[in-house]
Amino acid sequence: MTDRPFHAPIWDRGEAVDPEMLAFTAGDDWQQDRRLVLHDLRGSIAHAAGLERIGLLSAEDGIAIREGLYALLREHRAGQWTVEAGDEDVHSAVERRLIEKIGDAGKRLHTGRSRNDQIALDVRLWLRDAVARTSLALAQVTASLHRMRARFGEYPMPGYTHLRRAMPSTVDHWAHAHEAALLLDDDDLEHVRRRSRRCPLGSGAGYGIPLQLDREYVAMELGFEGPEEPVTLTQHARGRAELAYLTALEAIALDLGKMAHDLWLYSTHEFGFVKLPAAFTTGSSLMPQKRNPDVLEILRAQSRQVVADRAALLDVVRDLPSGYHRDFQLIKPPLFRAHDRAIAMLSITARLLDRLEWQRDTLEQACSDPALRATERALLKAKAGVPFRDAYREESRGAV
Amino acid sequence: MTDRPFHAPIWDRGEAVDPEMLAFTAGDDWQQDRRLVLHDLRGSIAHAAGLERIGLLSAEDGIAIREGLYALLREHRAGQWTVEAGDEDVHSAVERRLIEKIGDAGKRLHTGRSRNDQIALDVRLWLRDAVARTSLALAQVTASLHRMRARFGEYPMPGYTHLRRAMPSTVDHWAHAHEAALLLDDDDLEHVRRRSRRCPLGSGAGYGIPLQLDREYVAMELGFEGPEEPVTLTQHARGRAELAYLTALEAIALDLGKMAHDLWLYSTHEFGFVKLPAAFTTGSSLMPQKRNPDVLEILRAQSRQVVADRAALLDVVRDLPSGYHRDFQLIKPPLFRAHDRAIAMLSITARLLDRLEWQRDTLEQACSDPALRATERALLKAKAGVPFRDAYREESRGAV
Amino acid sequence: MTDRPFHAPIWDRGEAVDPEMLAFTAGDDWQQDRRLVLHDLRGSIAHAAGLERIGLLSAEDGIAIREGLYALLREHRAGQWTVEAGDEDVHSAVERRLIEKIGDAGKRLHTGRSRNDQIALDVRLWLRDAVARTSLALAQVTASLHRMRARFGEYPMPGYTHLRRAMPSTVDHWAHAHEAALLLDDDDLEHVRRRSRRCPLGSGAGYGIPLQLDREYVAMELGFEGPEEPVTLTQHARGRAELAYLTALEAIALDLGKMAHDLWLYSTHEFGFVKLPAAFTTGSSLMPQKRNPDVLEILRAQSRQVVADRAALLDVVRDLPSGYHRDFQLIKPPLFRAHDRAIAMLSITARLLDRLEWQRDTLEQACSDPALRATERALLKAKAGVPFRDAYREESRGAV
Amino acid sequence: MTDRPFHAPIWDRGEAVDPEMLAFTAGDDWQQDRRLVLHDLRGSIAHAAGLERIGLLSAEDGIAIREGLYALLREHRAGQWTVEAGDEDVHSAVERRLIEKIGDAGKRLHTGRSRNDQIALDVRLWLRDAVARTSLALAQVTASLHRMRARFGEYPMPGYTHLRRAMPSTVDHWAHAHEAALLLDDDDLEHVRRRSRRCPLGSGAGYGIPLQLDREYVAMELGFEGPEEPVTLTQHARGRAELAYLTALEAIALDLGKMAHDLWLYSTHEFGFVKLPAAFTTGSSLMPQKRNPDVLEILRAQSRQVVADRAALLDVVRDLPSGYHRDFQLIKPPLFRAHDRAIAMLSITARLLDRLEWQRDTLEQACSDPALRATERALLKAKAGVPFRDAYREESRGAV
Repeated sequence: MTDRPFHAPIWDRGEAVDPEMLAFTAGDDWQQDRRLVLHDLRGSIAHAAGLERIGLLSAEDGIAIREGLYALLREHRAGQWTVEAGDEDVHSAVERRLIEKIGDAGKRLHTGRSRNDQIALDVRLWLRDAVARTSLALAQVTASLHRMRARFGEYPMPGYTHLRRAMPSTVDHWAHAHEAALLLDDDDLEHVRRRSRRCPLGSGAGYGIPLQLDREYVAMELGFEGPEEPVTLTQHARGRAELAYLTALEAIALDLGKMAHDLWLYSTHEFGFVKLPAAFTTGSSLMPQKRNPDVLEILRAQSRQVVADRAALLDVVRDLPSGYHRDFQLIKPPLFRAHDRAIAMLSITARLLDRLEWQRDTLEQACSDPALRATERALLKAKAGVPFRDAYREESRGAV
Repeated sequence: MTDRPFHAPIWDRGEAVDPEMLAFTAGDDWQQDRRLVLHDLRGSIAHAAGLERIGLLSAEDGIAIREGLYALLREHRAGQWTVEAGDEDVHSAVERRLIEKIGDAGKRLHTGRSRNDQIALDVRLWLRDAVARTSLALAQVTASLHRMRARFGEYPMPGYTHLRRAMPSTVDHWAHAHEAALLLDDDDLEHVRRRSRRCPLGSGAGYGIPLQLDREYVAMELGFEGPEEPVTLTQHARGRAELAYLTALEAIALDLGKMAHDLWLYSTHEFGFVKLPAAFTTGSSLMPQKRNPDVLEILRAQSRQVVADRAALLDVVRDLPSGYHRDFQLIKPPLFRAHDRAIAMLSITARLLDRLEWQRDTLEQACSDPALRATERALLKAKAGVPFRDAYREESRGAV
Repeated sequence: MTDRPFHAPIWDRGEAVDPEMLAFTAGDDWQQDRRLVLHDLRGSIAHAAGLERIGLLSAEDGIAIREGLYALLREHRAGQWTVEAGDEDVHSAVERRLIEKIGDAGKRLHTGRSRNDQIALDVRLWLRDAVARTSLALAQVTASLHRMRARFGEYPMPGYTHLRRAMPSTVDHWAHAHEAALLLDDDDLEHVRRRSRRCPLGSGAGYGIPLQLDREYVAMELGFEGPEEPVTLTQHARGRAELAYLTALEAIALDLGKMAHDLWLYSTHEFGFVKLPAAFTTGSSLMPQKRNPDVLEILRAQSRQVVADRAALLDVVRDLPSGYHRDFQLIKPPLFRAHDRAIAMLSITARLLDRLEWQRDTLEQACSDPALRATERALLKAKAGVPFRDAYREESRGAV
Repeated sequence: MTDRPFHAPIWDRGEAVDPEMLAFTAGDDWQQDRRLVLHDLRGSIAHAAGLERIGLLSAEDGIAIREGLYALLREHRAGQWTVEAGDEDVHSAVERRLIEKIGDAGKRLHTGRSRNDQIALDVRLWLRDAVARTSLALAQVTASLHRMRARFGEYPMPGYTHLRRAMPSTVDHWAHAHEAALLLDDDDLEHVRRRSRRCPLGSGAGYGIPLQLDREYVAMELGFEGPEEPVTLTQHARGRAELAYLTALEAIALDLGKMAHDLWLYSTHEFGFVKLPAAFTTGSSLMPQKRNPDVLEILRAQSRQVVADRAALLDVVRDLPSGYHRDFQLIKPPLFRAHDRAIAMLSITARLLDRLEWQRDTLEQACSDPALRATERALLKAKAGVPFRDAYREESRGAV
C-alpha cells in the first residue's frame, strides 16, 4: 500500500507527511473519483466563469483556464488520462494537470472554492445523471411487463395468500401489480430530483467564502434552480440527497426482489407455472440434470445488497456533529455500488421478462381447484340474503 | 401466555385450535390495535354505506349497522371499551361487539371485505393522521429555531470542519442549517402523503371481490383520491407507505440527532458555548457535583432507535413473494414505536431550544482565534493578484 | 406524559427539575426495570455484605439493611410491590422503599456504589439467567428434532439446490441439519457466558471508588469469577455482553427462520411433503376454505425481528466515546424484546415439530423422479473409467 | 459487460447460454476468487489424494494431477496466472488449466466433488488464515497500548461521564480499558476458530456423494478436526462461520471506533489532551491553517463500514430455505471488504498510537478542577458516619 508514489497533495505545506497515514486515508478514493472526472470539469468550467464575472479572474486567465479544462475534458473522453493512484482525488488530479498544461493561471482556479463544496457539487451532478439513467432502465422493465400483460394476461393463475391458494386470479393481475409498484418507485426518483435542485458551490468549506461570488449565476450555468442556502446547509446535509437516491433504489430492489421470489417459486417443478428458457439457466458442476435459475437467485441476492448499500451509506453520515468531516469520503462506495447493482438488475430483468414462457396448461389445472371458488359461493349466499358470517361457516365446514 | 381467554376467532369453523399457537400468532397485536379503533370504525361506516349503495344491505340493516358503529365510536371515545386481550384483533373486536349490540344485521357487515384490505385501510387512515401530527410537531421545532435566530443569531461562533476551528461563523448560521434541514424533512412527509392517497378497500384478500362494489364512492367518502388499482397492488405493496413514513421519520431523527450531538459538545466544560438550564439537567447517584445533559443523550439514543425502527419495519416486508402474509402483522410495532419516539423527540426539542443559554463571552473569545481568518488573508492576497495556491502556501507556513 | 407524579429523584439536589425533561429521559424505563427487581436486590445484599466486611457499615446497620432487602424481596415475589411509574428506575425504587422501611440505615446502602455499576451488575445477573433459560428452550427443540428423526427419519425426500430437485435425501438428513445447526448456536450461548463472568460492582461511575472495597469478596458472593478489571472497562464495554447474547439469539433466529421457511414451502399444496395439523392453522375472515400456516409466518417474521433487535441494541452502544452515557438506558428494550421473542419462538417450535405430519406417499412420489439419480449414473461411469467431466456431459444431454 | 469473452463454463452441456445472463450472474466473482487460488489448489491436492486412496484415481493419474496442481501453485505464486475475466470462478479456472496442462487425467479431478463443497472448503481455509492474520494485527495494537501505558500511564486525566468531568483518572486507566476490550475481541476470534474446525469436503452439493469417500483422511490432510456432519449441514450453515468472523471484526471495529472517537475529541483545540504529530494530519484545499485529524475520521468511518459489511453478509444468507442457493456467491464481497478494512485499521492504529503526544500540562490543569473531588469529599463524610445520601446532598448544593 505504502509504496504507491503520491503526488504532493493539493494542500502541500512543505511538511513531511506519513505515507501510511496518507495511504490509509486516501484508500481507493482515487478509483471512486474516476467516475466524477466529467462532473468535476463541468463544475470547474462554471466556477471559472463565475470568477471571471466578478473580476477575480482576468479575461485572459479565464480563457486559458476554460481552454485548459476543455482540453482535459476531450483528453479524458478520449481515454488519454484519468485519476491515478498517486492523485489524492479528482480535484487534485484536475488542478495538477491544469497547472501542468497552462501554468500559473491554473493556480487561480481554486480561488473561492473548497474541495468540500466542489465534491458536493460533483456528486450532485452525478446524481442527476444517475437518476435519469435509472428512470430509463425502470421504464424498460415496465414496458416488458406491459408486453407480458398483452401476451399472457388472460392466462388464469391462482391468487395466493400465505402461499396457499386463495382466489382466482390471472397473469395480468400479477404483472399489473409489479408494474404499478415500479411506477410508484419512479415517483421516489422524482423525489430525489427535488432534493438535488440547489447548487452547493460557493458554500466553501461550509461557512461561505469571504468574497462576493455570484452564486446565482454559477447555479444557473449548471442547470440548478439556484444556490443552496444557507451555506451551512451543504455540509450539514451531506449525503442526504444520496441517501434519498438509495432509498429510491432500495424501493426498486424490494420490488425486483419480490418479482424474483415469485418467479423462483413459480418456476419450480412443484409449481410449474412458468419456465425460464434453457439459455437463462445455468448448470451444476456435479449434477448433470440441473437447469438452475441462478439469474433469479442473483437478482434476489443483489436486491438485498442494495438494501445493505443504503444502510452502509446511512452509516457514513449518521451521528456526526455539524460541519464537514472526512468520513463523507466514504459516501461514494455504497452510492456507486448500489447504482451499478440497480442498473444491472433492471437491465437483466427487462431482458428476462420478455423471454419467460408461461405454462397455460399447468395454470389452468391449478385454477380448476374448486376451493378457489369458496368465497364466491359464500358471497352468492350473502346476496341471496344469508348473513355473510353464516354463509362463511357453511362453506368452511366443507373444506379440509 | 396461554391462560388468556380467547373469544372464538372471527374465522371460527367449529374446529379445535391450539391455544399456544393462537397466543403465539396473536402476540400483543390486540394492544397494537387499540390505536386503530377509530380508524376501523370510520372505515366500517364507509364500507356499510358502500354496501347499501349497491343494494347488498337493506336500508334497515344499513341504518342498524351505522347506528351500532356510531354507538361503538362514542363508547370507545368515552373510554367504555377497547380491544381486549381475548380479541384476535380490532376487526374481530368491532364485529363481535356490533353483533352483540344489533344482532344478525351485524353479521352482514363483513360482506365484500377481507381483514386484509381492512387493516390496510385502517393503517392508511392512521398514517394520514400521523403525518399531519408529525408535520405540526416539526413546525414547532423550526419555530423555536427561528426564535433562537432572532434572539442569538448575531452571536459569533467558530465554524468547524473535522471538529477543528475553520472559519468565522454565527449562531444564526448554525441554527439556520438545522432549520433548513428540517424543512427538507417536511417535504419527505409530503411524499408520504402522495403514497397514501388511494383507498385499499375493495381489494379484498388481494384479488378483488366477486361483487360489483362501488369502490370509487367508498374511497371518496374516506377522503381518498380514488381506489387503489390494480387490486393486487394493495398486498403487493403492503408496508411500503408505512416504510415511506419511517423514511421521513428517519430523516427527522438524523437531523435531531445531529442537533443533539452539537449541543452535547457545545455544552461541555471544554467548549462552553451554550448552557442547559439546571432544570434540564439530571444528577448522578454518586457524584454530587454533576449536572448531566441526559436530555441530549436520550435524544441521540432515541434518534438512533428511529433508524433501527425503520430497519425493523423493512425486515418485516422484504423478501416475500406476492400476496398477503401474516408477517404483515408485525408492521405495526416498529411503525408505532417510531411515531411515538419522533413526536416525543420533536416536543422536547422545541421546549429545550427555547431555553438554551448561549454564552456570548465564550463564543467571542473562541472567535478571536486569528487562525479563523487565515483563509480571508489568503483570499485578500489572491484578490491582489497572487495566485491562490501560492497565497495559500504562504499562510500555511505560519500555522502550527 | 407529564402528569405522571414523580418521586423526588435519587439525586435530588433541591433544585427545580423540568417535568417534561424528566418524563422524556425516563421514558418507559421503569417498566423495563420491573424485570430487574430480583437482580437488583440480590446485588444490593452482596454490596451491603461487602461494606460491612470493610467496616463501612456497622453490624447493626448491616443487619437492618439485609433484613430490609430480604423483606422487599419476599414482598416483591408475593406481588406486593414493583417499580412504579413515579420511580426513576429500579435502583431508586429499592432505595426509597428501603429507607421507608428501615430509616436512616437505608441511606448508607449506596455508599461506594454508582447506579452505573449497579445497572451493569443487574443486567449481567439477568443475562446469566436468560442464557440458561434460552439454552433449555433450545434443548427442547433439538429433542423434538431428535424424536422426529426417530419417527420419520427414513422417509425419502428430494434434496434441493436452487429450490430445484437435486439428489436423493431423507427427512433424517433434513432434520439432522437443523439439529446440528442449533447445537452450534448453543456454543454461541456458551460464548456469552464467557463474556459475563466478571463482576462490575466496584467500578462506580466508571473510574473506581476512592474506598478500599473488597471487590473480590462481593464478586464471589454473586457467583462471578472475580471483579471486572480495569474499572474503566465496565462502562467502556457497556452493552457488549448483551450484544453477544443477541448475536447468539440472532443465530438461533436465523436457524428457526430457515426451518419455518422450509416447512412453509413443504406444506404448500404444490409440495405437499408435510401437513400442519388443523389445530395449528388459522382461517381467513373472507375465504371459508383457508387453513393458513400463520404460525410459520409469524415464526419467520419474529425471527427477522430478532435480527432487527440486535441491530437496535448495536445502535445504542456504537459510536460513543469512553465512559458512561445515558444512551445505555436504551439497551434494555431491544435486549428484553429479543429474549422474549426467542423464548416464544423456541417454545412454539418444539410444540409444533412434535405434531407435524410428514406425507410418506407424496415424498416417495417426488423421489421417484429419475433426474435425482443423474449424478449417481455419472459417477458409476466414472468408477468404470470414463473421466467424470465426460460422463457428466453424456448425462446432461439427456436432461431437459 | 457482455463483450467479455467467456470460456465455456465447467457445466457446459452444449446448449446456448445467454451471455448477458452469464455476465449478470458471474458479476465480479472471478475477481473475488483471485484471493482463493492457493486455497483452492490446496483443497484440490487433498481431494485428489483422497480419490487415490479409495481407488478412484489410478496412481498414475494421481501423480499427474498432483504434479499439475503443484505446478499451477508455483506459477500462481510467481504471478504467471490468476483467475481471469473469462473464467466463471476459481474452480473452473483451475480445472481448465489443469486439463490444458495434463490432459484427460484432469477431467477426473472433479469426481466426487461439487463446487458447492469446494467453495465452502476454500473459504474455510481462507478464514483460518484470515483469523490468524487479524489476531496478529490486534496484538500489535495492544502492544502499542501497553507501551503507551508504560510511557504516559501516570499522566492524570479527568474521567468523563456524559462527556462531563466526573472523577479523577489517568492515561493508564484510559489505555487499559482499550487494551482489555481488544483482548476480549481476541476471544471472539478464537470463537471463529471453533466454528471452522470441520471439513466440508465430501458433502457434495449438500446431500453427500454416492461414493465411499474417505472424508476423515481428507479432513486431516487439510488440518481439520474431522469432516463436517451431517452432509446437509454444510450448505445449511453456509456463511455462518464467515458471519462469526465478521461478528469478531465488528467487535474490533466498535472498539477502534471508540478509540478514534476519544482521540478525535481529546485532540481538539478545546480539550487539548493529546496531539497528533503534524505528519499524521492533513490539510485543507482552502484554509491554510488547518491540521486535520483525517486519520481518526477515516478510522471512525471505516469502523462503521465494518458494521455495515457484517449486515451485508447477513443479508446474503438470511431468510433462505435449506440447501445451496446461488446467493451464497455474494458472501465473498462483504467478507473480503471487512477483512481488508480491519487489517488496515489495526495497522494504522498501532502506528499512530506509538506517535501520540500526550499533553501533560493541559491534563494536569484539567484535573485540578475541584469538582472532580466532590465524590471523594462525600465519601469521607460517609466514612465519618454521615449517611451517604445526606453527605451527597450537602456536596451537591455547592456545585453550580
